[in-house]
Amino acid sequence: MSENSPLDNPPAENGPTPSRRRLDVYDTTLRDGAQQEGLALSVHDKLQIAQQLDELGVGFIEGGWPGAIPRDTEFFARAAKELTLQRAVLAAFGSTRKPGGTAASDPQVRALLDSEAPVVTLVAKSDARHVTAALRTTLEENLAMVTDTVTFLTGEGRRVMLDAEHFFDGYLADPGYALRVVRTAVEAGAEVVVLCDTNGGMLPPQVGEIVAAVREATAAPLGIHCHNDTGCAVANSLAALAAGAMHVQGTLNGYGERTGNADLLTIVADLELKLGIPALPPGALREATRIAHTVSEITNVPPMNRAPYYGASAFAHKAGLHASAIRVDPDLYQHIDPQLVGNDMRMLVSDMAGRASIELKGRELGVDLGGDRDLLTRVTDRVKADEAGGYTYEAADASFELLLREYADGARPAFFDVESWRIIMESPAQGVRVSEATVKVHAGGRRIIATGEGNGPVNALDAALREALLPAYPELATLELVDFKVRILDAAHGTDAVTRVLIETSDGRRSWTTVGVGPNLVEASWEAMVDGLTYGLLKAGVARR
Amino acid sequence: MSENSPLDNPPAENGPTPSRRRLDVYDTTLRDGAQQEGLALSVHDKLQIAQQLDELGVGFIEGGWPGAIPRDTEFFARAAKELTLQRAVLAAFGSTRKPGGTAASDPQVRALLDSEAPVVTLVAKSDARHVTAALRTTLEENLAMVTDTVTFLTGEGRRVMLDAEHFFDGYLADPGYALRVVRTAVEAGAEVVVLCDTNGGMLPPQVGEIVAAVREATAAPLGIHCHNDTGCAVANSLAALAAGAMHVQGTLNGYGERTGNADLLTIVADLELKLGIPALPPGALREATRIAHTVSEITNVPPMNRAPYYGASAFAHKAGLHASAIRVDPDLYQHIDPQLVGNDMRMLVSDMAGRASIELKGRELGVDLGGDRDLLTRVTDRVKADEAGGYTYEAADASFELLLREYADGARPAFFDVESWRIIMESPAQGVRVSEATVKVHAGGRRIIATGEGNGPVNALDAALREALLPAYPELATLELVDFKVRILDAAHGTDAVTRVLIETSDGRRSWTTVGVGPNLVEASWEAMVDGLTYGLLKAGVARR
Repeated sequence: MSENSPLDNPPAENGPTPSRRRLDVYDTTLRDGAQQEGLALSVHDKLQIAQQLDELGVGFIEGGWPGAIPRDTEFFARAAKELTLQRAVLAAFGSTRKPGGTAASDPQVRALLDSEAPVVTLVAKSDARHVTAALRTTLEENLAMVTDTVTFLTGEGRRVMLDAEHFFDGYLADPGYALRVVRTAVEAGAEVVVLCDTNGGMLPPQVGEIVAAVREATAAPLGIHCHNDTGCAVANSLAALAAGAMHVQGTLNGYGERTGNADLLTIVADLELKLGIPALPPGALREATRIAHTVSEITNVPPMNRAPYYGASAFAHKAGLHASAIRVDPDLYQHIDPQLVGNDMRMLVSDMAGRASIELKGRELGVDLGGDRDLLTRVTDRVKADEAGGYTYEAADASFELLLREYADGARPAFFDVESWRIIMESPAQGVRVSEATVKVHAGGRRIIATGEGNGPVNALDAALREALLPAYPELATLELVDFKVRILDAAHGTDAVTRVLIETSDGRRSWTTVGVGPNLVEASWEAMVDGLTYGLLKAGVARR
Repeated sequence: MSENSPLDNPPAENGPTPSRRRLDVYDTTLRDGAQQEGLALSVHDKLQIAQQLDELGVGFIEGGWPGAIPRDTEFFARAAKELTLQRAVLAAFGSTRKPGGTAASDPQVRALLDSEAPVVTLVAKSDARHVTAALRTTLEENLAMVTDTVTFLTGEGRRVMLDAEHFFDGYLADPGYALRVVRTAVEAGAEVVVLCDTNGGMLPPQVGEIVAAVREATAAPLGIHCHNDTGCAVANSLAALAAGAMHVQGTLNGYGERTGNADLLTIVADLELKLGIPALPPGALREATRIAHTVSEITNVPPMNRAPYYGASAFAHKAGLHASAIRVDPDLYQHIDPQLVGNDMRMLVSDMAGRASIELKGRELGVDLGGDRDLLTRVTDRVKADEAGGYTYEAADASFELLLREYADGARPAFFDVESWRIIMESPAQGVRVSEATVKVHAGGRRIIATGEGNGPVNALDAALREALLPAYPELATLELVDFKVRILDAAHGTDAVTRVLIETSDGRRSWTTVGVGPNLVEASWEAMVDGLTYGLLKAGVARR
């Protein structure tokens, strides 16, 4: 390890943390992560993910490329109004100015200013071949573009970071030019130069040697940005930090183009739990599993069960060989205590978490199950059976609370009874397509038949159910269905598969999520919708009428 | 790197390969890989996978634990009769004898002999705490078990390898004892001692240092067996090889308990393509992608698109930034030529893409748009408009080809005309829920009305449409809807949002994906379904009837 590496001085076990250079954790889920095949984030998704990242305690959130991608321009505009970040600083990603112009007159550079992000991360070419073959300009002009753009943006009061694109390939081909780009950026005022393994082809010893050589040759504060094309993104990032980099980039769930970016949560867990280097605020790592899974729900990309630390299988044990010994001493078979990352040990056959975490969760929701070991066992068994059938309570707190109350109070909270429903959808030869739903329910002492129309079956059901219930429960007028997510489970069976729906309902002040599972979208939606309205009435303190 | 490492002497570019120690590639997909959550292999599956592994050219195939797992006993019995391996040698995994007995009288050891596998890989404890706490015997008896079992099996003509379980944790806690286990095994006749990071908690520098220290302290030929709990299984394996190990264990697709075993194909590709170390027979690596995907089909575990080298996304490019430069020189944006691992570069069509990537994509699909700049502009504008409306063509090649043909040929390929459709879904107070669809179409010169039932609306529509079209197009009988994905876009609007459906259709030999977008799931599904059948008829070379 070189001098001044953030990995040099692990904190003493007792006593004050020795002084050391800071380690910056920089998340690029919303920009580079969004390049992943099949991942398409709405502005609403991005705002929700940014909130999760802030809860995780990363230092920087790269929100996108304003000016180049209209959705990203909108993200920064809405972020300025809607996001209240506790800790993280927003960064806008963009390019150095075009060859031959000025930074001040470059519309893309102006868009970076207009984003009002306090940090601008500029990507610049540092591989001489890319400058001439891809950018089609001269090596000198590329340096002028760096100087000009960094100077202009720092002059406008922005903190500027520089992503040195294709740095490692460039350094191997022409180290002199790659180093000139680094020096030029720092001399112009960039606060860190991030060495990017853009094509992802490096291995850890190479990365360590090159970072050390750059530290030797320049005074630049260095960062590292890796991709997983050799299966070494995490190890490459750690090798760079060991060699003196003080800023690490990555994404949640390792999202990213091709094989993905370096998995930020794994890097952070390795740093904190294996090397004793604090990277997040104290205790934040315990949120890692929850946040990784929540973000999977937002992106609707199925979570990687095998992900290190936060994966659903990361502490799951199947081997009969181990089972009895694990009971004696779990530490013999676990590399860390899973609670340090908010995960749980699981013995397979049994799904999901055990009694302890269900009791904890109940306490968190204000439903006391304590003391009654038998009740806890029955709830745990029910949760396991439900999750085996496709339910997920992790992302559906409101459904989980209804389930707990069902066991704690002896009956599931209910404000109405459903007799039947029917949907008719027509796509006629002439005229407009229409979906129509009819529901028959019992509420307020009456049997009510109501019909609703919508642009789809779920919409129509929602309209019909509200129509039926409003006379008895005017409180429902304030409830709104604000989010709706569908996942097909066991997709190998095509349309025969089981469908899981997550519905988010809001009363204007807070929102909650409910889950429904069924052989088709409409039945699953109906279940989640009924739970969503029931939970809203419960929280409004309404009595059954 | 230490002396005699297989990584010391990369072959000269010209002239004969210099003499060097061999590198053994040892696959444990069928044993340790089978511990993965959700993976359940039949004997037939195992035989098929073994055949694939032999084609890949690994040196050893660990087939299972005969005597402990009945299915594995059967595997070895059938393998002896049914498998004709060209290159690989079968290994049976098992444990050293029980404490206090003799190897010759231990039924589990006898089962290893009975398996008739030429190689036996014995697992032995090398962590002193595991000996006393889990195995509940003395440190000396554990050594006697190693000596006795290795001596007995070599005396019976078997090649014996020893997996030193929990070696790294054991070495850190008590290096003296861990080393005694290694020496004991080699002195008794084991041909290699495999150092196992059983709990997976190591990082590359530690692994490298410990392997080097063991090489320093003993003359044992060493192997490495890693798990991915720190996200470093590949890097840890490479670090061990660099430090002098000459045998590497891993699994296909990185299958395995918890976070999985080291991904063997990635290790082998890193060795051959990054370090110039031959690990498989010449040319075998070109089969890597095919074999990884075939094994995914056999295990029925969805393939990891983001896997290094062989993943479907590993050489997929989305960023519009790169597309024009990729045309100039693909090597600027790829860390290797994808054909070296049997994979392909793909351009993803997305709203970040421009004309250049659409032209490239057209060429890939065999639709030539070249030369006509005006046509390309119109296609690009259409794609951008569609994607802004919720379509995604990057995951829906078949819909994109239909769109390209619409522009190149002047009209979208069509085999039938739709007049109308209608769906009725009922969730009655009594009796079963049912979905029923009626479609009216024109095909084969007739107007056809057909009705289908299903467990959901999409299912029912699919049944009705096939019923209507089969008389005119019997080719449709071979087409099957195999996957179905739903995404609600712009979710902040709740059920008012736009729905995107991706449908994968297969003709039994290949499959293709189509996309539909609409205000509700059923309309979006209908569009994707019609495209899916149309594309199938197009590829079957059918003329409109």
